[in-house]
Amino acid sequence: MNYRAVLNILGALLISIALAMSLPLAFSLYYQEGDAGDFLVSMIITMVVGLLLVLFNRHHTELRTREGFAIVVLSWTFAAAFGALPFVFSGAIPSYTDAFFETMSGFSTTGASILTDIEALPHGLLFWRSLTHWLGGMGIIVLSLAILPFLGVGGMQLFKAEVPGPAPDKLSPRIKETAKILYGVYVLITALETVLLMAGGLSLFDALCHTFGTVATGGFSTKNASIAHFDSLYVESVIMVFMVLAGTNFALHYRFLSKQWGVYTSDREFRFYFRILLFCILLVTGMLFLINKLELGESVRAAAFQVISITTTTGYATADFEQWSTAGQLMMLLLMFVGGCAGSTGGSIKIVRIMLIFKHGLNELQKLLHPNAFLPIRLGGRIVSPEVMTNILAFFVIYMGIFTVGSLVMAMMGLDIITATSSVAATLGNIGPGLATIGPTDNYAHIPLFGKWLLSFFMLLGRLELYTVIVLITPAFWKK
Amino acid sequence: MNYRAVLNILGALLISIALAMSLPLAFSLYYQEGDAGDFLVSMIITMVVGLLLVLFNRHHTELRTREGFAIVVLSWTFAAAFGALPFVFSGAIPSYTDAFFETMSGFSTTGASILTDIEALPHGLLFWRSLTHWLGGMGIIVLSLAILPFLGVGGMQLFKAEVPGPAPDKLSPRIKETAKILYGVYVLITALETVLLMAGGLSLFDALCHTFGTVATGGFSTKNASIAHFDSLYVESVIMVFMVLAGTNFALHYRFLSKQWGVYTSDREFRFYFRILLFCILLVTGMLFLINKLELGESVRAAAFQVISITTTTGYATADFEQWSTAGQLMMLLLMFVGGCAGSTGGSIKIVRIMLIFKHGLNELQKLLHPNAFLPIRLGGRIVSPEVMTNILAFFVIYMGIFTVGSLVMAMMGLDIITATSSVAATLGNIGPGLATIGPTDNYAHIPLFGKWLLSFFMLLGRLELYTVIVLITPAFWKK
Repeated sequence: MNYRAVLNILGALLISIALAMSLPLAFSLYYQEGDAGDFLVSMIITMVVGLLLVLFNRHHTELRTREGFAIVVLSWTFAAAFGALPFVFSGAIPSYTDAFFETMSGFSTTGASILTDIEALPHGLLFWRSLTHWLGGMGIIVLSLAILPFLGVGGMQLFKAEVPGPAPDKLSPRIKETAKILYGVYVLITALETVLLMAGGLSLFDALCHTFGTVATGGFSTKNASIAHFDSLYVESVIMVFMVLAGTNFALHYRFLSKQWGVYTSDREFRFYFRILLFCILLVTGMLFLINKLELGESVRAAAFQVISITTTTGYATADFEQWSTAGQLMMLLLMFVGGCAGSTGGSIKIVRIMLIFKHGLNELQKLLHPNAFLPIRLGGRIVSPEVMTNILAFFVIYMGIFTVGSLVMAMMGLDIITATSSVAATLGNIGPGLATIGPTDNYAHIPLFGKWLLSFFMLLGRLELYTVIVLITPAFWKK
Repeated sequence: MNYRAVLNILGALLISIALAMSLPLAFSLYYQEGDAGDFLVSMIITMVVGLLLVLFNRHHTELRTREGFAIVVLSWTFAAAFGALPFVFSGAIPSYTDAFFETMSGFSTTGASILTDIEALPHGLLFWRSLTHWLGGMGIIVLSLAILPFLGVGGMQLFKAEVPGPAPDKLSPRIKETAKILYGVYVLITALETVLLMAGGLSLFDALCHTFGTVATGGFSTKNASIAHFDSLYVESVIMVFMVLAGTNFALHYRFLSKQWGVYTSDREFRFYFRILLFCILLVTGMLFLINKLELGESVRAAAFQVISITTTTGYATADFEQWSTAGQLMMLLLMFVGGCAGSTGGSIKIVRIMLIFKHGLNELQKLLHPNAFLPIRLGGRIVSPEVMTNILAFFVIYMGIFTVGSLVMAMMGLDIITATSSVAATLGNIGPGLATIGPTDNYAHIPLFGKWLLSFFMLLGRLELYTVIVLITPAFWKK
């Protein structure tokens, strides 16, 4: 392991984070709520540590896969560790554990909160909290479409299989070029949603914060009641549309903007994603209309928003789904295992994996009837290699394994079964709210100390597609 | 599809079931509790239908795979449909739905009951109820070790890979021979446990009934309090040992009786099975001792019995595990997804699959570090073919899929989440008791009508290794 190279890059990351803190600082100075000094101190500490790391670890060797894994995992960890400082210094979140949880929840675009009264926070801190989502989302798109493929994990591998036509690397193959293009798309979508939300009556501050939470599929709101606060069909509609976009492969957006108009409808994963959303919205609407006896319009509205919010792993709430029937609640719990498309900011298992796992199951049944036939699994006309299929199935198994063991450990802390299981599902899948005592109107404040660290780890694990983190804690990784 | 051949064999099955009813009839005549006439009527109906099917469908063609699937699935269905008659005619279980549920639970060796007062039933009916377990268990051993391999499903395929040495078919390859050998082992184990239980003070009746429930990993008791009724460490110990034996591959027992003494310790699946049991007993003992503050001896005793009972999918109870901590309860729920060894009477996912899925996960992680290395999955020195691995992973995925959709449908009937999910886990895995309103001290009486039929179907589905049943409801199966 080339430690110097790793530390050098982490130093650069810390410098960027220190610079990013100047944005909330601006809001602090504008609103004058006494948190500007705390931001300054946090910025200076982060900047100094960053500069020291960069200066004392100058190194110009090629990075290998091992360093890649270490950099990715430590980037998110360092970001959360230093990003937590303003919360602690300001006294808004006195416990460092809580502050780390909240910041990891931000950078991992989870949206799980330990805050009991969000609106009590000064504007600067609220802006920083939402900005961690946006930065994390930006990181994840680049990671999944440009960096992870180099490390042989998930993302691009699957994505490539889905690019129709003869040019699978129309996106610039070099990481920097790819990153630039994706940043452009991300910023454009952000700008668009901000403008549309402001048109709906939101202040620039609220519009920006909620846009950050949407495009990163994060879920932090500046309001205690989340999106229900605005009670506006327009605002909900805008957020719904952008949640769907945020859960879509960003490479598709780029290609759409490059005037390949039919790119969405020809993409297998997007079509499956769209169908899952539609099917689940219909199902939940039916439940709300028939079991909970809501009006039809109300049922559609609540079902559409919650299904999209949970499936894309955003976690915004317009309805307290704990008031729904048990079937409705279970549906929400199950949707936590779906997630967005590969190459989106959404987390969890992801649509393309769910789709291929589904196809694989059907395939095995066919083999029973035709034991000697050659029955490959296809995706958009191409054959999915057994290696990719094996990797996806292992991902599913490991995901369920972590969910299982994690739930057991959380239960050992004395939490009830629903809280224990949904806390792991909601953090591992980067959703945010769970069920029972961590439902959409509750928060994670009451989770025991060790539980908060464990759930923070699950956020990281889920966000980085499991493998990236697990590999790092494998003894074989550290062998010469 | 050769319908005549299928109906002919089903007729023979019904004749056997009618003959089997003579055993409980003997108890009815001895105890004189007024149910003898009901047994006679049931026997006559079953016998007549059986004879008609045999006589009007004389046919001597070779059976193909398709007929094999149909025979297996319809055998269990017919057995439950006609086996339910004595319960209905006697008025002990007036609703046919309830009686079918109870009988399917018997033949599938599940042990889930709709009875609120078991001890109120006459001896004859109680004996029949337990006997359905024993017959079902006998059927399943032959099915998994002799018939399913012919159909290309689960059992032998896996088992073969595990036979050490150069003679993978030491068990006679012909179904009839294999069946005879296995019946012999099954009867021997049954006789042994009956004698040991009688030595512990149980009447012949109680000893036989509880032996049937043990060796078939069923779980029906003749007592409302299940095994807790006897409050005897000796009885519990005997039952524990035989539950472990019943959850072991019966081919191993045969080979042990053929003086291959080291056969258990050299079998990979058995070793993994033993380790899982030991690990979980230790874990649950720790939970009971530390969280529930039970005495150490009491903790070990309760933990050992419940872990073995649930893991082997028996479902006998000595403790109301709903009084345990949530972690203890969740542990029980998770163990419902493990199950016995392949070729045992145990249900659920099964040890060999869990073991290979686990190895597969580790393997994928190794591949990340050594992307170009050839890393096959081994079981006892042999390489597991990718086809077998693919089949096992698909099994896991389909199992979880059915569990998921099933839980959702049960929740739609208004059940709480824990009851809904555990009812599916407990029937699909052929365990018996679940959690919440269907816990070890409760029963399934309150489940809505449609729910009882659906859970009966899940018992069948789980018992026949999913594929056997699913293939039958695939449109492609019925195409010419």
